[in-house]
Amino acid sequence: MSDPEKMWGARFQGSLDETFARYQDSLRFDIALAFEDLETNLAWSEALTAAGVLGDDDLQQIDAAIRELAEQWCEGVPDDDPGAEDVHSYVERKLVQKLGDLGKRIHTGRSRNDQVATDVRLWLRQAAIDLVEQLERLIAALVDKAAAHAADPMPGYTHLQRAQPITIGHHALAHVEALGRDRERLLDATARFDRCPLGSGALAGTAFPVDRDALAARLEFHGGPTRNSLDATAARDHLCEVAFACAMAMTHLSRLAEDYIFFNSQEAAFLSFGDAVSTGSSLMPQKRNPDAMELVRGKAAKVQGLMQSLMVLLKGLPLGYDRDLQIDKELLFQIVGDTGDSIAVAALAVEHARFDVARCAAEAERGFLNATDLADLLVQAGVPFREAHGTAGAAVNRAVELGCELQDLPHDEQRRLLPQLDVDLREELTAARVLARRDVVGGTAPHRVQKEAERWQIVLQEWGEGYGELEELDPDGEDPLAVADDD
Amino acid sequence: MSDPEKMWGARFQGSLDETFARYQDSLRFDIALAFEDLETNLAWSEALTAAGVLGDDDLQQIDAAIRELAEQWCEGVPDDDPGAEDVHSYVERKLVQKLGDLGKRIHTGRSRNDQVATDVRLWLRQAAIDLVEQLERLIAALVDKAAAHAADPMPGYTHLQRAQPITIGHHALAHVEALGRDRERLLDATARFDRCPLGSGALAGTAFPVDRDALAARLEFHGGPTRNSLDATAARDHLCEVAFACAMAMTHLSRLAEDYIFFNSQEAAFLSFGDAVSTGSSLMPQKRNPDAMELVRGKAAKVQGLMQSLMVLLKGLPLGYDRDLQIDKELLFQIVGDTGDSIAVAALAVEHARFDVARCAAEAERGFLNATDLADLLVQAGVPFREAHGTAGAAVNRAVELGCELQDLPHDEQRRLLPQLDVDLREELTAARVLARRDVVGGTAPHRVQKEAERWQIVLQEWGEGYGELEELDPDGEDPLAVADDD
Amino acid sequence: MSDPEKMWGARFQGSLDETFARYQDSLRFDIALAFEDLETNLAWSEALTAAGVLGDDDLQQIDAAIRELAEQWCEGVPDDDPGAEDVHSYVERKLVQKLGDLGKRIHTGRSRNDQVATDVRLWLRQAAIDLVEQLERLIAALVDKAAAHAADPMPGYTHLQRAQPITIGHHALAHVEALGRDRERLLDATARFDRCPLGSGALAGTAFPVDRDALAARLEFHGGPTRNSLDATAARDHLCEVAFACAMAMTHLSRLAEDYIFFNSQEAAFLSFGDAVSTGSSLMPQKRNPDAMELVRGKAAKVQGLMQSLMVLLKGLPLGYDRDLQIDKELLFQIVGDTGDSIAVAALAVEHARFDVARCAAEAERGFLNATDLADLLVQAGVPFREAHGTAGAAVNRAVELGCELQDLPHDEQRRLLPQLDVDLREELTAARVLARRDVVGGTAPHRVQKEAERWQIVLQEWGEGYGELEELDPDGEDPLAVADDD
Amino acid sequence: MSDPEKMWGARFQGSLDETFARYQDSLRFDIALAFEDLETNLAWSEALTAAGVLGDDDLQQIDAAIRELAEQWCEGVPDDDPGAEDVHSYVERKLVQKLGDLGKRIHTGRSRNDQVATDVRLWLRQAAIDLVEQLERLIAALVDKAAAHAADPMPGYTHLQRAQPITIGHHALAHVEALGRDRERLLDATARFDRCPLGSGALAGTAFPVDRDALAARLEFHGGPTRNSLDATAARDHLCEVAFACAMAMTHLSRLAEDYIFFNSQEAAFLSFGDAVSTGSSLMPQKRNPDAMELVRGKAAKVQGLMQSLMVLLKGLPLGYDRDLQIDKELLFQIVGDTGDSIAVAALAVEHARFDVARCAAEAERGFLNATDLADLLVQAGVPFREAHGTAGAAVNRAVELGCELQDLPHDEQRRLLPQLDVDLREELTAARVLARRDVVGGTAPHRVQKEAERWQIVLQEWGEGYGELEELDPDGEDPLAVADDD
Repeated sequence: MSDPEKMWGARFQGSLDETFARYQDSLRFDIALAFEDLETNLAWSEALTAAGVLGDDDLQQIDAAIRELAEQWCEGVPDDDPGAEDVHSYVERKLVQKLGDLGKRIHTGRSRNDQVATDVRLWLRQAAIDLVEQLERLIAALVDKAAAHAADPMPGYTHLQRAQPITIGHHALAHVEALGRDRERLLDATARFDRCPLGSGALAGTAFPVDRDALAARLEFHGGPTRNSLDATAARDHLCEVAFACAMAMTHLSRLAEDYIFFNSQEAAFLSFGDAVSTGSSLMPQKRNPDAMELVRGKAAKVQGLMQSLMVLLKGLPLGYDRDLQIDKELLFQIVGDTGDSIAVAALAVEHARFDVARCAAEAERGFLNATDLADLLVQAGVPFREAHGTAGAAVNRAVELGCELQDLPHDEQRRLLPQLDVDLREELTAARVLARRDVVGGTAPHRVQKEAERWQIVLQEWGEGYGELEELDPDGEDPLAVADDD
Repeated sequence: MSDPEKMWGARFQGSLDETFARYQDSLRFDIALAFEDLETNLAWSEALTAAGVLGDDDLQQIDAAIRELAEQWCEGVPDDDPGAEDVHSYVERKLVQKLGDLGKRIHTGRSRNDQVATDVRLWLRQAAIDLVEQLERLIAALVDKAAAHAADPMPGYTHLQRAQPITIGHHALAHVEALGRDRERLLDATARFDRCPLGSGALAGTAFPVDRDALAARLEFHGGPTRNSLDATAARDHLCEVAFACAMAMTHLSRLAEDYIFFNSQEAAFLSFGDAVSTGSSLMPQKRNPDAMELVRGKAAKVQGLMQSLMVLLKGLPLGYDRDLQIDKELLFQIVGDTGDSIAVAALAVEHARFDVARCAAEAERGFLNATDLADLLVQAGVPFREAHGTAGAAVNRAVELGCELQDLPHDEQRRLLPQLDVDLREELTAARVLARRDVVGGTAPHRVQKEAERWQIVLQEWGEGYGELEELDPDGEDPLAVADDD
Repeated sequence: MSDPEKMWGARFQGSLDETFARYQDSLRFDIALAFEDLETNLAWSEALTAAGVLGDDDLQQIDAAIRELAEQWCEGVPDDDPGAEDVHSYVERKLVQKLGDLGKRIHTGRSRNDQVATDVRLWLRQAAIDLVEQLERLIAALVDKAAAHAADPMPGYTHLQRAQPITIGHHALAHVEALGRDRERLLDATARFDRCPLGSGALAGTAFPVDRDALAARLEFHGGPTRNSLDATAARDHLCEVAFACAMAMTHLSRLAEDYIFFNSQEAAFLSFGDAVSTGSSLMPQKRNPDAMELVRGKAAKVQGLMQSLMVLLKGLPLGYDRDLQIDKELLFQIVGDTGDSIAVAALAVEHARFDVARCAAEAERGFLNATDLADLLVQAGVPFREAHGTAGAAVNRAVELGCELQDLPHDEQRRLLPQLDVDLREELTAARVLARRDVVGGTAPHRVQKEAERWQIVLQEWGEGYGELEELDPDGEDPLAVADDD
Repeated sequence: MSDPEKMWGARFQGSLDETFARYQDSLRFDIALAFEDLETNLAWSEALTAAGVLGDDDLQQIDAAIRELAEQWCEGVPDDDPGAEDVHSYVERKLVQKLGDLGKRIHTGRSRNDQVATDVRLWLRQAAIDLVEQLERLIAALVDKAAAHAADPMPGYTHLQRAQPITIGHHALAHVEALGRDRERLLDATARFDRCPLGSGALAGTAFPVDRDALAARLEFHGGPTRNSLDATAARDHLCEVAFACAMAMTHLSRLAEDYIFFNSQEAAFLSFGDAVSTGSSLMPQKRNPDAMELVRGKAAKVQGLMQSLMVLLKGLPLGYDRDLQIDKELLFQIVGDTGDSIAVAALAVEHARFDVARCAAEAERGFLNATDLADLLVQAGVPFREAHGTAGAAVNRAVELGCELQDLPHDEQRRLLPQLDVDLREELTAARVLARRDVVGGTAPHRVQKEAERWQIVLQEWGEGYGELEELDPDGEDPLAVADDD
């Protein structure tokens, strides 16, 4: 018995084995492209009409049927058609149900290869915009922290060892810088894939005289049509690039998480999370766990590996389209979904985190965070830095023996150990003085941090006002299906 | 407002933020552990009873409630409880609904940390057994091919270049060897994690006098109880090891796929797939694509990356349990599920593949596959191999110029190029003779291949009869819940 | 005994364990940064001078010593100093040897954390430029192929099954498109990290009044100084982004390799590699293996994994600098080195590949590559595409039975199977006609391919003439050390 | 001009391009196999002699030449032969230099494909044994810690939050358990690849009547010869399996590192590292950084990625040998080398770590680590656990308000909050009591920890005495080349 349900059944006598049929079915996940597939069907029908393959009446009917489906699906796309094996056959079947023979004409000159390539780019463009907006919210939360705590000292770390005092705001802005680059990467990636593959056929280009420039404009691809049909149907580097941008952002979130989990430990006790983002233990009644940040850190691992899957998927594949590529969507949807959710949760966690400013400040005076400044004072007194470093180290050793901080070294000890210095260490080595000395671009001096926070506030405002790059990609944020009404 | 629904709500005043609540909810995937969780609840209740914490009556009620739930869920576990955030709270809530206060006693001395560790090991044990059975079916399909084609010649390749003739059966058995090792790896991994974590508490061990040896026996963990509670609750290397075995098997499947996809090309045309495992093109009517094998190859990429995710998840985590670990199940279930499905589909594809024996045989006589044997004949005539190699190479060059095969070199050419040889090349250089010469253990001589195929048939039979290692892990294959009846 | 050799020995009494000393030593690989470290030393000395920390005489001496070292090292940097543990201590020791106490002053206000961050960015900028140039050579080789074979037909594939004819040039340009995006990605990445970290100190900014804008300009960082000292010393996403661009390019090379290895098989026999890039077998005298492309494909795997290593390295690290980060260079140098070498070898392999144009053309007429066009002819005759697809499929089935191609179907068969068609299939279904029909942007119609090849030739010329983006990054390609002369 | 230097030059007219020649050269890394290659040359020569291909005199000369080379190379193998492209051609050239024509006979019936497969297995077997010994040293260091601190309390963590007290010894043994499994995995892997591929030829088996069973015994492969020549030359899963075992062990080291880095922070201050394994800062004089553990954690990332590279390398490769496989050694040598070094350094770091027992004990009484025990006391007083959990949580909240620990709650508070309890909390809630209650297998009760430490000491002793599995693999540890003397 033949398999007349299939779009490709022409040469086949026997049915698919059921196990294999289930295995190859992608409808359960690519149904996420249902609206994009409607868009490409409509755009393609318009192009076929302009090319004389369909009549104006045909187009009107198709347009109506597609809008009807779009409306019906507003609440969610029913995934109920056992005859469909993917979103493209699903949509085609729905259109044939509504349009009869006319529905069977829409696939003229088109392949699922260029269709899925187009659907995914449409989906990915919106997904990237959404991720950018999530990142902006997280950046805003951190910039708020920075503005509120631009001058509040806390210990700064290298090697998880106390190093020098910084301000809480300075710490927040370090993460802002990284996330800002992640945002840029997403925009760069999006601009690079902003070209329309529709009309590339299965691998060699469509044989119908379709105006691909018009088609690209119609679907709002700002880079115009793709320039090689084989590449257009076989390439997936745009998925990889977005996946990389996601994995990189997740890696940055995992570092933020690591910091906050440590700050939240009873040992550091620099910040606490609100109830909205903490959970407890089913056994230990006292626990308040930083689960939000832990899950974010864990999802970073997931996204890193899935990005790798996507790269490996492509490794050694011949051109053009191979069925392996179907799996790209299983990976992509998880990568983008998990990244978006994780950024949102990280933003929540930051918003619900409260720094214990007094404790942070007190701790910034402890642990020899000012030893570098002692060396610097020696340098100012004419000692070569490498020797000053040694002298300051000896002073720290003595302070450890005495159980005191450098600023608390008894006068005679200071005279003995640091004869070159005729200053009041108590005054020169406060966290406030140490911070104030780092008065260069990018330094932790409070007024520098304040200025950087203000710079970011302006940037955020500009993004929010839509002067950013987003606008170029999606000038009015309207639904492309809706845009068609204007025609 | 407090969050009294939560198992851990004791110290919390505010509710979880909804976004975070959704993000941290694992019920949508760990519901797969529902039956395992029932088992551990029952076993733990028995252990608490033996320890005097619960009475015999209590146990009877619990036992009945658990069996009732198990029966209700036979058709599928309803995932409908918004108050539950994971499978453990889900099951506890169901038990409290049935048992009231008694239900609230079951979590005594137990943590979700040791509970989930136990549930996952139970699940993983069954999953490994299932994977082993899938592998055995695939091995059987390949051994069938090997037995049927033990003596049928085909070109053998290195560098995707024709190298020497082999038999179709020899090729099949190469893959069998690799898959046999994959099967062993799964069994080794399973034996290694066959220890019971229950009774490890949250990290430090339970404070109730539970007999952990009995508990391990009750749940049929053959290695007894785990020996360190902190390791038992924080370790996930058993998941990684199974994931590695899966990824390795998938990698082997991807190589089988690569071979079969090439053999199925119009260029090689050595085999064709039946309709049951092929699909066509929505655009190109002539296409019959080896989709089954392509999808298998693609899933290999997915599983490799997910295995990596699992390793990365653990990297740099402190002991003991961290919430990151929740994500292990999202990864594991996909890894095991995709691997099982892919093995099944690969088995189908092998079963539905038909070699074109005549073409394979004809091609085995073409392409200078016998050049090594020409060199070997020279060696037998006393030429040092390294020179013989050069002479044979020159003969190939001449044959290329003449457009003939080595065995078809004109007599005068043979005399000129190979003066040392006084043999009939037509006879000595047939594929059959070339094959027959590889008469060593592991060689492609047909009777060797035949014997190896027979050896594997015996091995398969032994596995099937249950003399294999599987039995040690699961002596009767009965449901542990059912076993409890005997108590 | 103290360890006075070490830059950091101040507080230490005992020596390093020898095993650990070897393990932590990075000199064996970061010696590659020797010249960059000289540059940063010189620039930093200038900055300290401008800030009044050093005198003009000091600077003159330092400048002379650095130039002397640079000259001595032109032939290769001797890695012979057991007292140094990394390139920074190595260079400092050399300077102290030449300058005495003055050498000990250079590290004033600087940390190895900002120093290595600056060195690596300088190195990476040059490395990226080199990679871009390698990519351009490979693109040029492929564009040459495209121009030479813009109209030469060959079979096009999907699923490694013959699909539709394309031209050899069209195939070459598909790879050009992908590699062009890789080139862009490298440039985007480079622009993003084109900011100067020097002056960020260990984590909090330098305490000396250094003009960081001037410093950035001096080292030709076009983006100015970095804006947050903690981010500047702890961030490594720029390494990841370059690594991703490398891994993506390698993945594209692996697909090119897969195509060419298949085209080079005896089965396809579409192309042969020259002796310059082939190797043989130590055993099988007839072999000519496509090793160049196989090694490239293999290196893709290496680079993909190393990129992953780099991402994993960062996962979950707290800010700021942790010693884990030292390993970034072990990874980066391999990633960039292997990628550069592989692109060069791929370019060689393409240059030395010769297509068998006659065979490609003959094969483009075989294997039902024109079945889509048969369906399209039916569409033009008014049949809905979905039905036309079925009819064409049936015609293919019949042709298979008859052992002929579609264009060779007997007339009565054509009439029976395709009653709607009144055309001469022999004429309509030649590869030439099939190609010519794909006359859209990006299609394989020969004149389209020709035009695309010409477009790329212009692009290449522009790149070569230096109107490209490269110039912005490195306007004159002169050595920054040399630039200092002008001061 | 031909390339007569090459082992495979027979059919080649032109020389290799120099860039490609360098790229394909593996001598710079596979020279590490020089001794293994001598062994396989000797064993193969013996096998050829037994098969009548070489005479006894020939063998004697070969044997002498090989021993001479082995002796010459004892100080290090000079890598100085531009005519060689890999270790096999290197060794063959050396033998031909010594033996003339006889040297050219040794490659009879052998391919570099089975030769490298054999060399690598010999190398890998020794490497695995070395790794096992390194792991045993690290395990011993941790068991020493466990024995010394079996009863010393410290805070135990989940989610990096204080959870329950454990003993320092219990923490050490958690890592011992994990590393013990890593050791087992290495042994399992080694047993699985303990089969001899020599005699498999290039892909199809050797054509000479070599006794492969004898050959396997001669090279001490306990599993005998491999059973399929195509698998034997193309399979690399044994490299992957060892790589996985390494990556898993490194992942475990990274968790140990994370714990110790945190314990070493000024915040926790539970342990300090000796000078032998710490380093300082070039800028900040006070710093003592846990670099050893940071580098170990970083190397874990490297090894995870390289393991992935190895898997990806194989993905989708056809059988048999492809040149991609050459890269396996670049990866393997780094994986094994870095893992071995890291284990050694981790052992050093553990040996040089000193716990501050007094501080650990004091901290174990702080932070509500006894809240679970308060709930358990309520359970013993008849309260269902889920309610007891809530009550204990409320008590914690009150204690937080009062700024005291649970054991310090004023009497009236206790009466009000915990009316069910008539016990002295000061006595019942000490860390010592809490520890003692976890008196089950695997629990942290001191005498349990003591017993587990003793069990491990016995295991270590057995391993040391050679009753372990190592012996089966390498009964006397003698050099196989030396063994030949006995013949």
